[in-house]
Amino acid sequence: MKKIAVITSGGDCPGMNAAIRAVVRVALTCGVEVWGIRNGYAGMIDDDMAKLDSRSVGDIIQKGGTFLGTARSEEFKTLKGQQKAADNLQAHGIEGLVVIGGDGSLTGAKQLSELGIKIVGLPGTIDNDIWGTDYTIGFDTAVNTALDAINKLRDTASAHGRVMLVEVMGRACGWIALTAGLAGGAEIILVPEQPFSSDDVCKKLVESRSKGKKYSIIVVAEGASSAIDLGKYISAKTGLETRVSVIGHIQRGGAPTVADRLLASRLAERAVRALVDGRSDIMIGYQSNQCVEVPIADAVGKKKDIDPELYRLADVLSQ
Amino acid sequence: MKKIAVITSGGDCPGMNAAIRAVVRVALTCGVEVWGIRNGYAGMIDDDMAKLDSRSVGDIIQKGGTFLGTARSEEFKTLKGQQKAADNLQAHGIEGLVVIGGDGSLTGAKQLSELGIKIVGLPGTIDNDIWGTDYTIGFDTAVNTALDAINKLRDTASAHGRVMLVEVMGRACGWIALTAGLAGGAEIILVPEQPFSSDDVCKKLVESRSKGKKYSIIVVAEGASSAIDLGKYISAKTGLETRVSVIGHIQRGGAPTVADRLLASRLAERAVRALVDGRSDIMIGYQSNQCVEVPIADAVGKKKDIDPELYRLADVLSQ
Amino acid sequence: MKKIAVITSGGDCPGMNAAIRAVVRVALTCGVEVWGIRNGYAGMIDDDMAKLDSRSVGDIIQKGGTFLGTARSEEFKTLKGQQKAADNLQAHGIEGLVVIGGDGSLTGAKQLSELGIKIVGLPGTIDNDIWGTDYTIGFDTAVNTALDAINKLRDTASAHGRVMLVEVMGRACGWIALTAGLAGGAEIILVPEQPFSSDDVCKKLVESRSKGKKYSIIVVAEGASSAIDLGKYISAKTGLETRVSVIGHIQRGGAPTVADRLLASRLAERAVRALVDGRSDIMIGYQSNQCVEVPIADAVGKKKDIDPELYRLADVLSQ
Amino acid sequence: MKKIAVITSGGDCPGMNAAIRAVVRVALTCGVEVWGIRNGYAGMIDDDMAKLDSRSVGDIIQKGGTFLGTARSEEFKTLKGQQKAADNLQAHGIEGLVVIGGDGSLTGAKQLSELGIKIVGLPGTIDNDIWGTDYTIGFDTAVNTALDAINKLRDTASAHGRVMLVEVMGRACGWIALTAGLAGGAEIILVPEQPFSSDDVCKKLVESRSKGKKYSIIVVAEGASSAIDLGKYISAKTGLETRVSVIGHIQRGGAPTVADRLLASRLAERAVRALVDGRSDIMIGYQSNQCVEVPIADAVGKKKDIDPELYRLADVLSQ
Repeated sequence: MKKIAVITSGGDCPGMNAAIRAVVRVALTCGVEVWGIRNGYAGMIDDDMAKLDSRSVGDIIQKGGTFLGTARSEEFKTLKGQQKAADNLQAHGIEGLVVIGGDGSLTGAKQLSELGIKIVGLPGTIDNDIWGTDYTIGFDTAVNTALDAINKLRDTASAHGRVMLVEVMGRACGWIALTAGLAGGAEIILVPEQPFSSDDVCKKLVESRSKGKKYSIIVVAEGASSAIDLGKYISAKTGLETRVSVIGHIQRGGAPTVADRLLASRLAERAVRALVDGRSDIMIGYQSNQCVEVPIADAVGKKKDIDPELYRLADVLSQ
Repeated sequence: MKKIAVITSGGDCPGMNAAIRAVVRVALTCGVEVWGIRNGYAGMIDDDMAKLDSRSVGDIIQKGGTFLGTARSEEFKTLKGQQKAADNLQAHGIEGLVVIGGDGSLTGAKQLSELGIKIVGLPGTIDNDIWGTDYTIGFDTAVNTALDAINKLRDTASAHGRVMLVEVMGRACGWIALTAGLAGGAEIILVPEQPFSSDDVCKKLVESRSKGKKYSIIVVAEGASSAIDLGKYISAKTGLETRVSVIGHIQRGGAPTVADRLLASRLAERAVRALVDGRSDIMIGYQSNQCVEVPIADAVGKKKDIDPELYRLADVLSQ
Repeated sequence: MKKIAVITSGGDCPGMNAAIRAVVRVALTCGVEVWGIRNGYAGMIDDDMAKLDSRSVGDIIQKGGTFLGTARSEEFKTLKGQQKAADNLQAHGIEGLVVIGGDGSLTGAKQLSELGIKIVGLPGTIDNDIWGTDYTIGFDTAVNTALDAINKLRDTASAHGRVMLVEVMGRACGWIALTAGLAGGAEIILVPEQPFSSDDVCKKLVESRSKGKKYSIIVVAEGASSAIDLGKYISAKTGLETRVSVIGHIQRGGAPTVADRLLASRLAERAVRALVDGRSDIMIGYQSNQCVEVPIADAVGKKKDIDPELYRLADVLSQ
Repeated sequence: MKKIAVITSGGDCPGMNAAIRAVVRVALTCGVEVWGIRNGYAGMIDDDMAKLDSRSVGDIIQKGGTFLGTARSEEFKTLKGQQKAADNLQAHGIEGLVVIGGDGSLTGAKQLSELGIKIVGLPGTIDNDIWGTDYTIGFDTAVNTALDAINKLRDTASAHGRVMLVEVMGRACGWIALTAGLAGGAEIILVPEQPFSSDDVCKKLVESRSKGKKYSIIVVAEGASSAIDLGKYISAKTGLETRVSVIGHIQRGGAPTVADRLLASRLAERAVRALVDGRSDIMIGYQSNQCVEVPIADAVGKKKDIDPELYRLADVLSQ
């Protein structure tokens, strides 16, 4: 393998730049040329790509987002679009591709691999919902951002004796809510994976007041409920004062944490080494503190559940 | 004056603790005893107050919220409630009172003063909407928190080429939106004081794309529009992708900034010195880098507008 | 087991409060009474301890330091001191003890266990140097604090083209330097475990300038070198401008990160369950994302080395 | 005036980028072309400059450092160097120059003005030591960074009952130490402007212990003392445990605060308007919340003292 490319696709996450940097520098160490594709699969179709050298990835490790840009592409969902993208890579002599992104991006990678491109995927999404890896790139930063919000809400919740609701990301998946909620000492955590009744939430809040809790923090995954609607319901039902924050895309930004930079760097190194050694159609995951290679078909086909032990622990600790 | 009390009332804000600490330590230096009243005027009515010494305000300067607690009180809105509160103070021999809070709290202070309590108010609100002072305690922290959110949104906005809307506090007043928006390089800032049309917003966004801006940040004061509704409108009208964050009470929390701690400390010192010197029925403001005493009736009766120069500058700089 | 105690000892670290909170709340769920010992083993000797309930550990999960206090005790190093401490526990009917601390504290725990106290240790130190656990409580927060410093130095290093040295903690152990250095994109990382020559450092700096690097960041563990002395040497030898920061105990403070709060909570839960189930003389470690029980004699007797793979990766990525 | 240039010179500070951005965008609004000079006066001598447009200053407002770079230049200290620099500007048709920097940079500006270049200076230095302005660009960010360090030291100081020393910047000037110390609740603040004896420091520490203070924070300006030496002295003399942090150039980095971005934007706007209106040989200062124009000869010739009132207040509040 003499020439590879790197692409970030789908929703961005903190740590993508650290991954790109590691792909480039490790590849150069292995004597492999690296190209960067701009704006995701759309850029691959538009032949928007350029060679990267070591200096071109300097001073980016600390930045959120992705300096290559990212986008969603309708055209790439068609076989014609995919073929055009693959043709562009081949025209440049690019044999291998490192794809950094979430579920949709890795699915796209799998489709490219069927057109003859050697593919290695990296799990890059704040949602931590990719099968085959304990952690995804961006998750640690996102939950720390959510935690920072909870820390601040705690100050004012405590001063007023209020119920504070914070809505975090997670349409189909409660990892951010569960993790930030446990770390933030939330009294109630609502995730898409666990059905709940708003009345039970109200009951629990009323009970905890009678036990001496002076304020409450509720963390809600966007896929579990609208925090705004739930806040109104609680207020109407219990008479408790509620306030709501919807932190939204703030969770996607910011300088990546140590853990995300290390994870991105390690996975990226392994991705390049796999390509160089002739292995592809895989995603590099991180399991039990080791880089592992999992079939990309499994990574995009299987579902990763939240940890039930963590959910149980959160409940015990909020007593 | 031998004995004074200090109270935080209404919405909390970062810097209230720094103000309480300064009231206590300056008063002790002047040979005056200080009591702390818990949970705002409600606590004054319930006689929930205790003597404070220098150590009891140790290790609080860095904390958001108010360790005395705060609350809103319906009972205090009645003359009977006010009389009960005043009676409690007098029963303890408390002659003077430092009230830290926003418009409503200072109005309450004015009412107490009519019942014979010597009152000095401090402007404590994140909204910066109190007449007679250039800055209110908590404003600098709140706008820096909002700015931090904007910084993070910028990463992901840049990666995706999106329109990011962030809704900040300010029901009747656009100081937070204007200041955070200008500092954050927002393209559009919407404040309650300036009428706007959603169509003009859409037009401006479309134009800026044609001039080469790849993404846009819109800061919306809650009193100007719902960012969620506006985001939907823009998306439907222009086809641009929008994302919304409603940062809410996060703005009220967090460790106070240097500026808020200094402001709180300076105003608090002057408040105590005014009481000791026999002046009351005033609010201590900060004008042109000096503590000033303004009649409390003016502070609660007059309206402070946003700075039109700042609004104009924000527009020039977003080109 | 009806009654246990919890103690923090030795150097404090972020996450100790989260661990105490979890010990208390899990124990109460198991029907076990919990006492808190103040100021480490010194407080145990002085019988400075009190019963804790669920509310007494409210609002502490977000705080650095330890609300129980910690101290070093000369008296506890004697058998007489240890016996007095054990007697005090027994006088209160305390059968089990959870000790949160580093190497010295766990060694103390082992000694107490020889006097009949059932002991479970938790690895609490920013240094990450305890055998038997992949991570220690406080490490993730400390390296993120060091990383934040490096992020800031990068701004000014880049503006000036300077060599910035930052000295981080780690007398005998380079985990903080290695991890923060890798994450921070440091060009050179100096750890106690790896001998180096100052002249080689100078040579590498000069070479990297000739390759186009405009500035350099060097992370130095305090046990590897004095950053101040090294900075002077580099400057004299190469003529490059150097600047030095010694971040010191700042690394010990601050609100704990998500990872540290989770680690503390999980380990603490397991510690209580082990005591309740009759297991002791162990430390709870975290290996491959699982809580594990290791003999406390191993935890204090064996040495944990830095990860050589990480060191190699740091070198590749700094090219 | 048809064409101006902007330069950052001397030590960098947070907010320089915000100032450059405002100079460019305001000038373009006025129909004036703007050039950016790279690496300070050295770049002016080397003719290292290029035209800037509105997009070229996009996405920089949030960044520390200066994207133009900065450097110190020995050659510029000679008349020959200055003449060469002036000739380069004139060769490009550049008539006016906005210089952003500290005392040395503004002195350089004054020298250029004597060679026929129309000059307006902006006070850009974290030290806040420029006569004619209440605040310099970068000061607010630097003191908030120092405060963050103090906040973290407080956690661990409190846990251990130690004396923590933190050395901040300020060779000839105590503004950072005084302001951060007051805001951080430091017990002792040492500044170059106020002579002190190490024995008095020791005495005060011992007394405060006897009054019940459990730990102490000392903020030392680098120009007042070496914190490392002082820490050793205190420890030897009093037996109190001391720990030292030297935060150094960390204070120069980081995203600028709201206040610094606003200050930079306002001053920059006024600088451009002054040039356009034909006024030069001035520095734009900020006094009593207003932009003012002061003769550049005064700005570099007069000394700005620390505020004695603030120093006195710090002492009262540390009781």
